[in-house]
Amino acid sequence: MPVNLPLPDPTKLYPVAGVELGFAEVGVRKADRKDLLVIRLTEKASVAGVFTQNRFCAAPVLLSKDHLAAGQGIRALVINTGNANAGTGEKGLLDARAVCEAVAANLGIKASQVLPFSTGVILEPLPVDRITAGLPAAIANLKLDNWGNAAEAIMTTDTQPKAYSRKVDIAGKTITITGISKGAGMIRPNMATMLGYLATDAAVPQALLQQLVTHAANRSFNRITIDGDTSTNDSFMFIASGEVSVPGLDDASSAAFAEFRDAVTAVSIELAQAIVRDGEGATKFISVNVLGGKNDAECSAVAYAIAHSPLVKTAFFACDPNLGRLLAAIGYAGINDLDVSRVNMWLDDVWVAKNGGRNPDYQEEDGQRVMKQAEITVKVDLARGGAETTVWTCDFSYDYVRINADYRS
Amino acid sequence: MPVNLPLPDPTKLYPVAGVELGFAEVGVRKADRKDLLVIRLTEKASVAGVFTQNRFCAAPVLLSKDHLAAGQGIRALVINTGNANAGTGEKGLLDARAVCEAVAANLGIKASQVLPFSTGVILEPLPVDRITAGLPAAIANLKLDNWGNAAEAIMTTDTQPKAYSRKVDIAGKTITITGISKGAGMIRPNMATMLGYLATDAAVPQALLQQLVTHAANRSFNRITIDGDTSTNDSFMFIASGEVSVPGLDDASSAAFAEFRDAVTAVSIELAQAIVRDGEGATKFISVNVLGGKNDAECSAVAYAIAHSPLVKTAFFACDPNLGRLLAAIGYAGINDLDVSRVNMWLDDVWVAKNGGRNPDYQEEDGQRVMKQAEITVKVDLARGGAETTVWTCDFSYDYVRINADYRS
Repeated sequence: MPVNLPLPDPTKLYPVAGVELGFAEVGVRKADRKDLLVIRLTEKASVAGVFTQNRFCAAPVLLSKDHLAAGQGIRALVINTGNANAGTGEKGLLDARAVCEAVAANLGIKASQVLPFSTGVILEPLPVDRITAGLPAAIANLKLDNWGNAAEAIMTTDTQPKAYSRKVDIAGKTITITGISKGAGMIRPNMATMLGYLATDAAVPQALLQQLVTHAANRSFNRITIDGDTSTNDSFMFIASGEVSVPGLDDASSAAFAEFRDAVTAVSIELAQAIVRDGEGATKFISVNVLGGKNDAECSAVAYAIAHSPLVKTAFFACDPNLGRLLAAIGYAGINDLDVSRVNMWLDDVWVAKNGGRNPDYQEEDGQRVMKQAEITVKVDLARGGAETTVWTCDFSYDYVRINADYRS
Repeated sequence: MPVNLPLPDPTKLYPVAGVELGFAEVGVRKADRKDLLVIRLTEKASVAGVFTQNRFCAAPVLLSKDHLAAGQGIRALVINTGNANAGTGEKGLLDARAVCEAVAANLGIKASQVLPFSTGVILEPLPVDRITAGLPAAIANLKLDNWGNAAEAIMTTDTQPKAYSRKVDIAGKTITITGISKGAGMIRPNMATMLGYLATDAAVPQALLQQLVTHAANRSFNRITIDGDTSTNDSFMFIASGEVSVPGLDDASSAAFAEFRDAVTAVSIELAQAIVRDGEGATKFISVNVLGGKNDAECSAVAYAIAHSPLVKTAFFACDPNLGRLLAAIGYAGINDLDVSRVNMWLDDVWVAKNGGRNPDYQEEDGQRVMKQAEITVKVDLARGGAETTVWTCDFSYDYVRINADYRS
């Protein structure tokens, strides 16, 4: 059961002109599930993305980077679940290339105009034949109005699809931003998330598109963690189909660009938080807000120490205000000159730790009340500077163990 | 059920001349359990130790460091479970001092000759009255032959006591090394472990004793992890009671000293591994051996990335050779210039990954066979240098979640 994550409302998933989506069931790993997605773009479209920094990055990630760098104009994306095509060496690259060539042949474009993506089990060979055999079916149902199906087609251990859409008026024009994402384990994105795709009908030059996707990723997908495991396949792609020309979007210093950037970031945050809300076994959505740091790096170090601590996460699962575990995590986050006697900590509105020790006014029942909520904010003030950051995570439950002990079998 | 951890054999826990141990049940947190331990030393004894690097280190840790530095000659150690006296600010220091003063008054020594230790729940006030009220009982049963009871008296979520003892002949003299330790969660020691106490009857000068304890800790307690959470109270103490004078032990370059250092390290490794074997919810004991690194730091980074990954640990729990998760952990360990095409990986004798991809000869049933064992070695060759390291960890089970969701309540 995801935490406060409504199912996408199909009537509010606005199509993006110039972006068609088609899916198929090809049995990559399991039968009877949508596991192949093709996204076709018009010639006017530009695409930018950020990718995992895992050194064992998957073959399709390597190829997507190559194809983006080749600058031939991206015309299609192809995504399979069930198999990550990672840890597959030279053979994996050949397999990913074969998929691109099949997509290109079906659509009458070049293989270098196709970006491939895979997600699923690592260290197993990609079933190329089943994917290429399923491509015609996916291409046959390419539609503008297919975002809901697309969100389903990229799911792995996700319990529900994740999609979000928004219309925004900028400089007198109405533009659409629609995106999908998936989790739900091996989630501690580093420059990107497991899989996230965002599209807009606005025209944005390639260089600015790259700047936008980095900006948005750093404030959304790069701020979430479920288990601290950075995947081999993380990719977050931003498509600008170029159908709507908006004055100012070719100028990073314009007010219109800033407005657009904020809208793109807001949609990215919704999609990123959706991954946490549907994190494997999640029963709680936790925001960790660290302020008063000297810089973002130390705020992040403290926030992630808390967000990754199995002891903190199991205490949240138990609704047990065992809050000393939070202090321990702050203490081992790696700030060697931290003066703990200045540290303060709150659980929502409850002031728990004051000047490095238990707040004399703190009452266990107040902590208990907050711990029972489905959404909780931990706020830590390091009182040594002006930097601040927030990361989002979930708790650690029996079901996380069950899901990951069962997955694959 | 700990993994291959026999109960200590009382007939093989050799007393250490000059070191007496006494325990009591004082109800620090729960009734009817040994939760207070006093260790009394003769005037000839020297003591050295290493302590947690957690910035929120506990009040007793701060005081123990002060008392060691004061150089008055340590004559007693006092240890309580049930309450960590950490995150307790100025009040915590006063409480720890009050316990030392009570021990000193009972034994006719100075408070600065007492080292205090606490372990248990963080952020709660220490029940000083119950501890001081129980001291006379603990002191009344001070005995040389009490190591087994002492091991029980320092347990928290441990399922069984941990003690190890060894006699060794060096330079014509027989000396004894006996120690106890406890876990079993919040275990990723950084310079020390939750609690470990080692004693020898050999005479060792203070400076060399400090050198020895650091050497042994870096090869034992600092090589284990259960959940990656570095505790606020980690302490590893080494007592040399000075009863047996051994030629050479006052010279760090002597063969006798090297022999003694190896024996102390071997006992420390037994005690450290015992903590992992009895890790919270552990069903498997896993050695992660990383070789071919440029230096110890990068070998350790890879080993800990594997040892902390919840996905790797749940796969071990499930006996599922989902070995791509191991590659993913190697890939995000932070070696930015890692050439993954040179990486090889073995599960015991089974060659799983060859040159960065799945070994073509790897058979799933071979991986399955190893995964079913209670003890497993993961070996990773980075093929970029001559450094090597090993860390020890356990798997991640339903019981870890149960224990930590229940603990405290």
